[in-house]
Amino acid sequence: MAPTAVLRLPARALLRPWALLRGVALGRTEAAAGIRNGARRFGSQHVLVEPAAAAGVAVMKLRNPPVNSLSLELLTELVISLEKLENDKVFRGVILTSDCPSVFSSGLDLRELCGRNPARYAEFWKAVQEMWLRFYLSNLVLVAAINGACPAGGCLLSLTCDYRVLADNPKYLMGLNETLLGIVAPFWFKDSIMNTIGHRATEQALQLGSLLPPAEALQVGMVDQVVPEDQLLSTALSVIAKWLAVPDHARQLTKSMIRQATADRLLKQRDADIQNFVSFISKDAIQKSLQTYLEKLKQKKG
Amino acid sequence: MAPTAVLRLPARALLRPWALLRGVALGRTEAAAGIRNGARRFGSQHVLVEPAAAAGVAVMKLRNPPVNSLSLELLTELVISLEKLENDKVFRGVILTSDCPSVFSSGLDLRELCGRNPARYAEFWKAVQEMWLRFYLSNLVLVAAINGACPAGGCLLSLTCDYRVLADNPKYLMGLNETLLGIVAPFWFKDSIMNTIGHRATEQALQLGSLLPPAEALQVGMVDQVVPEDQLLSTALSVIAKWLAVPDHARQLTKSMIRQATADRLLKQRDADIQNFVSFISKDAIQKSLQTYLEKLKQKKG
Amino acid sequence: MAPTAVLRLPARALLRPWALLRGVALGRTEAAAGIRNGARRFGSQHVLVEPAAAAGVAVMKLRNPPVNSLSLELLTELVISLEKLENDKVFRGVILTSDCPSVFSSGLDLRELCGRNPARYAEFWKAVQEMWLRFYLSNLVLVAAINGACPAGGCLLSLTCDYRVLADNPKYLMGLNETLLGIVAPFWFKDSIMNTIGHRATEQALQLGSLLPPAEALQVGMVDQVVPEDQLLSTALSVIAKWLAVPDHARQLTKSMIRQATADRLLKQRDADIQNFVSFISKDAIQKSLQTYLEKLKQKKG
Repeated sequence: MAPTAVLRLPARALLRPWALLRGVALGRTEAAAGIRNGARRFGSQHVLVEPAAAAGVAVMKLRNPPVNSLSLELLTELVISLEKLENDKVFRGVILTSDCPSVFSSGLDLRELCGRNPARYAEFWKAVQEMWLRFYLSNLVLVAAINGACPAGGCLLSLTCDYRVLADNPKYLMGLNETLLGIVAPFWFKDSIMNTIGHRATEQALQLGSLLPPAEALQVGMVDQVVPEDQLLSTALSVIAKWLAVPDHARQLTKSMIRQATADRLLKQRDADIQNFVSFISKDAIQKSLQTYLEKLKQKKG
Repeated sequence: MAPTAVLRLPARALLRPWALLRGVALGRTEAAAGIRNGARRFGSQHVLVEPAAAAGVAVMKLRNPPVNSLSLELLTELVISLEKLENDKVFRGVILTSDCPSVFSSGLDLRELCGRNPARYAEFWKAVQEMWLRFYLSNLVLVAAINGACPAGGCLLSLTCDYRVLADNPKYLMGLNETLLGIVAPFWFKDSIMNTIGHRATEQALQLGSLLPPAEALQVGMVDQVVPEDQLLSTALSVIAKWLAVPDHARQLTKSMIRQATADRLLKQRDADIQNFVSFISKDAIQKSLQTYLEKLKQKKG
Repeated sequence: MAPTAVLRLPARALLRPWALLRGVALGRTEAAAGIRNGARRFGSQHVLVEPAAAAGVAVMKLRNPPVNSLSLELLTELVISLEKLENDKVFRGVILTSDCPSVFSSGLDLRELCGRNPARYAEFWKAVQEMWLRFYLSNLVLVAAINGACPAGGCLLSLTCDYRVLADNPKYLMGLNETLLGIVAPFWFKDSIMNTIGHRATEQALQLGSLLPPAEALQVGMVDQVVPEDQLLSTALSVIAKWLAVPDHARQLTKSMIRQATADRLLKQRDADIQNFVSFISKDAIQKSLQTYLEKLKQKKG
């Protein structure tokens, strides 16, 4: 399992990811690869975007095999892809799903958290923040069609969506399980889940690092619906149709009114949050614990 | 459907609505129209107040046919009536209900939102704020006996109460459906519903403008109880008896401790909220959308 | 029922209760009374601490017959005992339960609230605050095994824990019933219950002073589990084993991230909160109401 080749982006580019489309990154983008229903299909190395069988809806598929680890590269491409859709008047809603079997996303790429230098950790964390801010505040309707395991950062990504449908498979566990790796979900992960399942359920889920099977994820409110796997996409399409029946402007202002305060908590202390992360992840004890975990993963696969 | 004749009140009168009782408005009040159980019956043009068949309890009925639109006049009379009850030591609790068949209240009177001048919009919005603040912070026990449809501002009014009983009729839909009209519920509408059904359910209900039938309203917590329509008043009376068994002083301090922070958010930016409303409602696009909606309503009735 | 003899502690000692262990109070502590599994057993007059039949777990039993009233003495001993366990590396979790039949704790000792002088009220209230702050923020895992009635301050104590198991007995009522005594739970009692059962359920429970039987306490989320009384301790042990499977450091940081803001609200206005309490409790009307209630209790027992 060789480390993924990773794009080195200037940090400020993350704030304006669409700028990348006119530079180096553009070369990697198969822009306008297809037209259907008047909507373009495009993709980058790890994110495939195609129009859905419904007007105004795109399907965004994570494609970073084997487990959709959120590397710096994937995070950057996710933000760029969302930005493109937001700037394209054809699209009003996005269904977010996985192109890898059995896994929605395994969360942050552990190789980004081990053996790197502080500047790189900072760059990576800024990209995680950026992904969360962009998806959480997107003016598009976002529906997660969760077709696989959904731990940690994968769960966080799904929590940014407006609605979550989970395929009914007992192996598709979901939750913010950071504590089990000996690390701590930052406050905005906590805010995301607390806004979804409430204060009390968060106290338990976050301290225990609970990974819940579909029935429990539904009961606690971590997902809105559980359906047989073969109905996942059709359900997501029905749901998004309901959301798109609402006038965009009123819905967007309402979404922003509800979510902005939560986003502002991070925006007001973004640099401090990066510093916290870098100093935490650089600790010997944390590095040791993550290295051990990575070794185990490799042996398991070997 | 002729526009309702509307009282022109100096804005400051809304802050001290009882002052009106000693002026012009007093003439319209059939004060002390009846005495029963030592309690007075009174009413204004659009609000009928009478003692209930239980000590210390008044029934306040909205009477603005056909659908209890919250006009400036009705809002003002609601506040005046509540103030009178608060100042009358006989009363400790109020059951709020509708005198119009099938509708609790259709919400803000759309004729107040169309084709008026900014000063009038400001006056109207101040009255909406005043209604919310007075009812939300009332030291009386307020129980809503919801005997009809309860959208938008009607839902808001019911959310100010301490308890909500809804008659079990599939036509009695309830919710803050502003987005469906292309408008946005202000932050204190959002706070009211979030305090009632929680953050996650609010994200959905408010963005989708959901109007829920009784079973769903109960499940999400928008009402506390659903009962057959012929048991609505008796249930409300049983409920209020339970609340009145608690010593007033302790209950009032507790209510204020829980609710004051939410009210303060509006109190601290009341003028800015009025300006927001006036500039939003004055927009051509909004006016057009509301006019179209009003025309449809008239044709429907014509 | 003679008033309990009460330790007179300098107020500052409450901030560093372990200091008492090296002074007068130490004499009352049967330290190191037993060793089992390498863990020490100790106790004070009203709090018995013994190792559980599980590594790293202590059982802390309240023993202030007949009803575990939270006197100044008991509160102080609770804090000292917790502090000792936190400083003893053998222990990682505590099961909190009662040594008195049928009562977990009846709440604040009413004799502390009647006929005392302001300085004493202030001392007592500081001890109540201290208990809440220490238990709510403890870095140990705290599981309440509630084996009896659990009103008012008893309920508050259980709400500081990470998990609550309640024995299934219809007499074991639970809730913050302060309003029924004509008094008002302070804001941090309110915050504790709101973080547990949410905003709407708190509005009702706190205003009505609801005391809920096990099934209702479970439904509203006031407890996490209800089990037959003879399975209470074994369930608590299973639960705590699950919590102790999480690495301490990550769990503790997560707990603190979730709870610190709530604790800070009290920490920032601790003195003002004491002054509020003293002036409230000193009022003639409140004293009269409490005296009457105490007289009734004595007659009931006489």
